[in-house]
Amino acid sequence: MIGIFDSGIGGMTVARAVEQLLPDYSLTYYGDIARTPYGPKSPQTIINYSIRNAEFLLEKGAELIIIACNSASSVATEALRKRFQVPIIEVISPAADRAIQISKTGKIGIIGTKATVKSDIYRKTITAERPHFKVYSQACPLLVPLVEEGWLNKRETKMILRRYLHPLKDKQIDTLVLGCTHYPLLKELIQARIGKRVTLIDSSIETARYLKEFLTDNPEIVSRQKPVRHSYYASDCTETAMKVAERIFSRPMELTVA
Amino acid sequence: MIGIFDSGIGGMTVARAVEQLLPDYSLTYYGDIARTPYGPKSPQTIINYSIRNAEFLLEKGAELIIIACNSASSVATEALRKRFQVPIIEVISPAADRAIQISKTGKIGIIGTKATVKSDIYRKTITAERPHFKVYSQACPLLVPLVEEGWLNKRETKMILRRYLHPLKDKQIDTLVLGCTHYPLLKELIQARIGKRVTLIDSSIETARYLKEFLTDNPEIVSRQKPVRHSYYASDCTETAMKVAERIFSRPMELTVA
Repeated sequence: MIGIFDSGIGGMTVARAVEQLLPDYSLTYYGDIARTPYGPKSPQTIINYSIRNAEFLLEKGAELIIIACNSASSVATEALRKRFQVPIIEVISPAADRAIQISKTGKIGIIGTKATVKSDIYRKTITAERPHFKVYSQACPLLVPLVEEGWLNKRETKMILRRYLHPLKDKQIDTLVLGCTHYPLLKELIQARIGKRVTLIDSSIETARYLKEFLTDNPEIVSRQKPVRHSYYASDCTETAMKVAERIFSRPMELTVA
Repeated sequence: MIGIFDSGIGGMTVARAVEQLLPDYSLTYYGDIARTPYGPKSPQTIINYSIRNAEFLLEKGAELIIIACNSASSVATEALRKRFQVPIIEVISPAADRAIQISKTGKIGIIGTKATVKSDIYRKTITAERPHFKVYSQACPLLVPLVEEGWLNKRETKMILRRYLHPLKDKQIDTLVLGCTHYPLLKELIQARIGKRVTLIDSSIETARYLKEFLTDNPEIVSRQKPVRHSYYASDCTETAMKVAERIFSRPMELTVA
């Protein structure tokens, strides 16, 4: 079984992509809604929470764990790999790899939470492969609350996006990584503000693609059970969380509090 | 010693008011920054966190506990009073009492988090005293993130405030309760948008006033030690938290992670 955890509900964009791309695998999702958001918190706190989330998934039988949260991927991947035996897949490298493939000018923009931007992980990952590439990062801390409010098409959201994206536009990037699992819900607004020539990279989709390749190369890692089961758990459940979840999946969702 | 807890740093507006009004008392503050915010979370989760916070303060020697968070005051006061022997003071009743004293038209507005507004506690408290009063509530979930970003004078903040306050303005309220400890930092913007004729009630200041009266009537409850000590603890520490804390106190702050 594939285990996926996130700081809350944003990581469901990864779960949805995995459901679509790998329909023959069971998955278990754990969203830490009771402690959300991770983005503004310290690395040590994010590491502690990530260990707890991974333990929950391992108890449920996870044979592989996806960290479906950019903030946790940025600061907790190493700690989880040291502590646990199962493969740990994070959302940074798949998105960084795709950005390297796609960018022609070598000018790449990154938007994410404070934790992600402060970790500087995207720049480090990209320039390790392409030392001459320029990576420009912008923390966008208000986007998660705006998405969770459902303000997906409000004037204020557009203005805030314009303010955040302006410095990246100035740098004439040709590729922009949506470095937070909430941001795909704002994809169209972001595209309109950053300009049509800039290619957006959705870390959710890239991670699901990477997982598919990984399982093709290592088919023994995750066993297939029939019937396929998709189980969704969370540490808390609120109306807003359910609304965002149903917006992501376009179907009624069941979320078990655990 | 007076114990004060909050979901994060907003409750420091209460601690500052207590420091100013009761300079002869020691106080210990605990901000649950690692789990902040409480406002969007479920009542059960908020109760669990509040019990843990109160236990921390009792271990430090608190003889009285102030719940300096409107969301926790709204849903967890009863649970804490049942569980602990020390007096539990919350921020709702002092603000509600002041609103009753001040309002001439009996039309009172409340702004707060989702948890506070959903609990309907301000309306219940006010109409228990004045059944004919009209209480209009508005959840303002984006204000806490905006304050924590330091966007205290940005155009987007003003627009979002206008959107939130518009329905209350329509009801021609004459009194508005700032039912979240973060909101005093936006007091001037709120006053400008709701209009000069509306009196703003700051739950931080009202709670400190109420505490002073309570200790005048019950001087044996809290012992006075010399020298007076003000200790600030939190479950996590981030740059943003420190910035907001220093903005609240207008002095350099020390925050011990515990």
